[in-house]
Amino acid sequence: MTTTLDYLNHASADEFVALLSGIYEHSPWIPQSAEAQRPFATLAALKLALQGVVSSAAESAQLALILAHPELAGKAAIAGELTKESSEEQAQAGLSHCSPEEFNRLHQLNADYKTKFGFPFIVAVKGPDGLGYTRSAIISIFSRRIKNQRDYELAECLRQISRIAELRLNDLLGHCLQFGNRIMACSETLAAWSDEENALTCAYMTAAHQKTAAQLALWMREAGMQVTIDAVGNVVGRYLSDVANAKTLMTGSHYDTVCNGGKYDGREGILLPIAIVKHLHERGEKLPFHFEIIGFAEEEGVRFKSTFLGSNAIIGQFDLALLDKCDADGVTMREALTAAGHDVTAIPAIARNPADILGFVEVHIEQGPVLLGRDLPVGIVTSIAGSCRYLVELTGVASHAGTTPMTMRKDAGAAAAEIILYIEERCAQSPSLVGTVGQLQVPNGSVNVIPGVCKFSMDIRAADDATRDAAVADILQRIQAICQRRNIEFSLNKVIAAAAAPCASWLMQQLAAATARAGVPVLELPSGAGHDAMALAKICDVAMLFTRCGNGGISHNPLESMTADDAEVSAQILLDFLRNFKAKE
Amino acid sequence: MTTTLDYLNHASADEFVALLSGIYEHSPWIPQSAEAQRPFATLAALKLALQGVVSSAAESAQLALILAHPELAGKAAIAGELTKESSEEQAQAGLSHCSPEEFNRLHQLNADYKTKFGFPFIVAVKGPDGLGYTRSAIISIFSRRIKNQRDYELAECLRQISRIAELRLNDLLGHCLQFGNRIMACSETLAAWSDEENALTCAYMTAAHQKTAAQLALWMREAGMQVTIDAVGNVVGRYLSDVANAKTLMTGSHYDTVCNGGKYDGREGILLPIAIVKHLHERGEKLPFHFEIIGFAEEEGVRFKSTFLGSNAIIGQFDLALLDKCDADGVTMREALTAAGHDVTAIPAIARNPADILGFVEVHIEQGPVLLGRDLPVGIVTSIAGSCRYLVELTGVASHAGTTPMTMRKDAGAAAAEIILYIEERCAQSPSLVGTVGQLQVPNGSVNVIPGVCKFSMDIRAADDATRDAAVADILQRIQAICQRRNIEFSLNKVIAAAAAPCASWLMQQLAAATARAGVPVLELPSGAGHDAMALAKICDVAMLFTRCGNGGISHNPLESMTADDAEVSAQILLDFLRNFKAKE
Repeated sequence: MTTTLDYLNHASADEFVALLSGIYEHSPWIPQSAEAQRPFATLAALKLALQGVVSSAAESAQLALILAHPELAGKAAIAGELTKESSEEQAQAGLSHCSPEEFNRLHQLNADYKTKFGFPFIVAVKGPDGLGYTRSAIISIFSRRIKNQRDYELAECLRQISRIAELRLNDLLGHCLQFGNRIMACSETLAAWSDEENALTCAYMTAAHQKTAAQLALWMREAGMQVTIDAVGNVVGRYLSDVANAKTLMTGSHYDTVCNGGKYDGREGILLPIAIVKHLHERGEKLPFHFEIIGFAEEEGVRFKSTFLGSNAIIGQFDLALLDKCDADGVTMREALTAAGHDVTAIPAIARNPADILGFVEVHIEQGPVLLGRDLPVGIVTSIAGSCRYLVELTGVASHAGTTPMTMRKDAGAAAAEIILYIEERCAQSPSLVGTVGQLQVPNGSVNVIPGVCKFSMDIRAADDATRDAAVADILQRIQAICQRRNIEFSLNKVIAAAAAPCASWLMQQLAAATARAGVPVLELPSGAGHDAMALAKICDVAMLFTRCGNGGISHNPLESMTADDAEVSAQILLDFLRNFKAKE
Repeated sequence: MTTTLDYLNHASADEFVALLSGIYEHSPWIPQSAEAQRPFATLAALKLALQGVVSSAAESAQLALILAHPELAGKAAIAGELTKESSEEQAQAGLSHCSPEEFNRLHQLNADYKTKFGFPFIVAVKGPDGLGYTRSAIISIFSRRIKNQRDYELAECLRQISRIAELRLNDLLGHCLQFGNRIMACSETLAAWSDEENALTCAYMTAAHQKTAAQLALWMREAGMQVTIDAVGNVVGRYLSDVANAKTLMTGSHYDTVCNGGKYDGREGILLPIAIVKHLHERGEKLPFHFEIIGFAEEEGVRFKSTFLGSNAIIGQFDLALLDKCDADGVTMREALTAAGHDVTAIPAIARNPADILGFVEVHIEQGPVLLGRDLPVGIVTSIAGSCRYLVELTGVASHAGTTPMTMRKDAGAAAAEIILYIEERCAQSPSLVGTVGQLQVPNGSVNVIPGVCKFSMDIRAADDATRDAAVADILQRIQAICQRRNIEFSLNKVIAAAAAPCASWLMQQLAAATARAGVPVLELPSGAGHDAMALAKICDVAMLFTRCGNGGISHNPLESMTADDAEVSAQILLDFLRNFKAKE
């Protein structure tokens, strides 16, 4: 039985609640509370309304909702006491066919989890792509999540319940994703090609990288685009307009990855617009401007320790001296490009003419926990934070751990510890400000020697340069004070100081309008990570649409996660944005 | 012109002051103040009385004393305005023959130092061994010390003035060191044999180590001892008594070193008693007990990560399973010993019979700054601190440095920083307590990734186990609390928990009596470092005599320093102790 959003909007309150009774396990109070918000303009709006009831409920009500759920492969399943929906979902994940070892493991995990948190473990067994986890994947997620703390798990169970409800609503309304499934599937295809086994690493101009480029080019062609792979490896597809003298609206992101990275970082921003163009092409629908999708060949800097190679070539700022840089095996970038069949003398000609460009809009997974924390599928970026990075070396005296009284020490490690805590404290003082000590080491440290040297990195970012620079100034001043008090010498090596790239308000407004039309509240947020849009911002106006990142917002990690439904919402918003796009006056 | 201590003790006050007028540069107030303390029982007592006047003077008087000293190779030297003593000393260091570059460098250092501190740089150019620094050594010391802070340099200049005064008093009284120069020279000989160029590293059973053992055996034989090198490499010399059924008083220390270590750590405790036995042997003087000096083959644990190999064999607690341990090159300890010609099956037979032993008395450089701070050449150890060591691993989440707001992080590095500062704070709460985080690392840290893992070591020590255990308990509790608050997992691996080894009061009393007879105030202090005496304490009563450590007390470092005069005082005290030794009733 399927129903429609329109039917739900006009049903009686009782019928509305009855129709949605299977969406949240044994919890009719949720549709009851959401009912008064009808009519819902979109399915996304209905989903958000139901989620909003849950997230604004008292913790006791939230706990009751969680407790209304059955254990995975638990007694209720065996006794046949599950709701129809739960029963089908558990069966689909193969949980009804556990081996004795798997069953025992799940049983133990269920017991330990319940003891630790006081509520049952909940996971949407259909997973982010709606295709379902394997039993072993579920056991692995369970084993990981049981290590979390209660607050996190309470929130995570509620998020999993939202995901379950979302999938059940899709079924109820017979809602098929136009773009989301394809974006997920294409991401899986690309993720299978890696420089390493059992990890996704796609570094510049490796075999996996070239194969990925060829696949992107193929998909672009299938979508009706004119495609070239340029001299630095950017895969460029143009969906041409019929309008005379049309200018170009650009989108895209990078297809290289970090070492052992995620499947969506960068790639979502290529695959999503390809899916949209394919749709337009199949409908024979043209746009009043050329639409260009660029799969940037390199952004992460893994192989040659130099970032933004692809986008810098597009903006005409590729530094040709980099061609002589070597990778870890002593291969120069020039050699790597030539071996891949590229003509490095053609690099300068890649540069675009800014006069031809209407703007650049990048879709990207958030890579952070903000949208997840707000229960929103998308957000609009206000600014891409500029990063200021230092390598710091502290020098004290490496003296004997046993014989040097605490008052007579010059401990470089303790000085670093004090600096790290100050960075943490100072960077908590402004919302968009972040500060990280990612590298930290006492070189050749011994258990029984007071650290004579300690080296660490600092990465400070904010949505605007003034906020960041004020923090950096305070931090440098504090380093000076801490080192003076502790009689420690320090040296600072500033390795990066990139200016923040603010997004263009006219583009943000059009993205916001499309988001609102999709029934999604508009959240603006800064991007703490660098993106290709940062380079493009040097020659044109830019904007970015962020898609929610699952698993606590983790990225640059195999656990990076995105749902097909969030990809769908993002794609619908970008499509709507394109259809309604107005060039800057 | 030489005079005698007796003459000084009985001269008129004016003559006393006049005779000592050259000892402190342009500062007759110092002998004037010390004069009333006559008679002085020993030269050491006279030196300490003069130093006491300086150290108890007001800072203004101390500054005046420092300012009364000429610059090194400065204008006064060029103009011939130095005191006779200064002039000779500067000439001896070759400062009158500086190259233009050296002169310019010294001139610049003089100017910078004076600007920074407001007083001239002072160094006893004759150095710790009385043989004098080279020009390049002086420039190197100058370059290092100019980086210190004012308080430290004020104290260091006064210490250098004390050293200058000591050397001038030796000259004035025609005082020749019986033991000190030989101990310093033998230390230099051994320091030339190293596993590494330009650093002193003497690891277990390397070529340098075996050469060192052979040299020690040779010196012991020359001193009239019966010598063997046992199956673990201990060099054992016995100075036999004529008394029937005599028992054995033992002394000794280790001849291996840490990586890039100091010349005196361990070795002083072998070379000093050899010098004494040589003296006894040359005089035909016998002792009423056998006197055994052991050069322990291994104490530091550098090569096989296992400490006290030599002393554990002596007490019959050598763990034979260690023979299968590998060094960094995959060589087992068994292979290393066999290659050096040792028979590992003979190791158990090394064990001594406790009934034969009168006690064990170890002389060792302090390796810390306490005696230096008290202006005392020697001190008597109350207890050897037991070390409690842990390896700690913190696990957070390695998420994106740019996109994870400060409030949503699980930063293993920041958690470690908080723990490090707590260890520092907690261990400052008891005088003999020390706590050190010597190893600290974020493995594979990246500038732009929040640390997901941080590993560090903890080493906590105190003179008594109760003090240490209370601190450890507090620290472990705080680790738990910090990790819980920050949502970090932690694992603790306790690698060492050695009980403190208290020294025997009857031995301490006899050492104290000998110290007092040498004219030196008795200072008791705990040993924060582990020593071979700690192992010996498991089978007999032990005591330790500490010799002052220069350069701020630094050890396990090439800057480790000891003066010939302090070695002399230590040797005279040990000799006097031996001559007056009474076995425990």
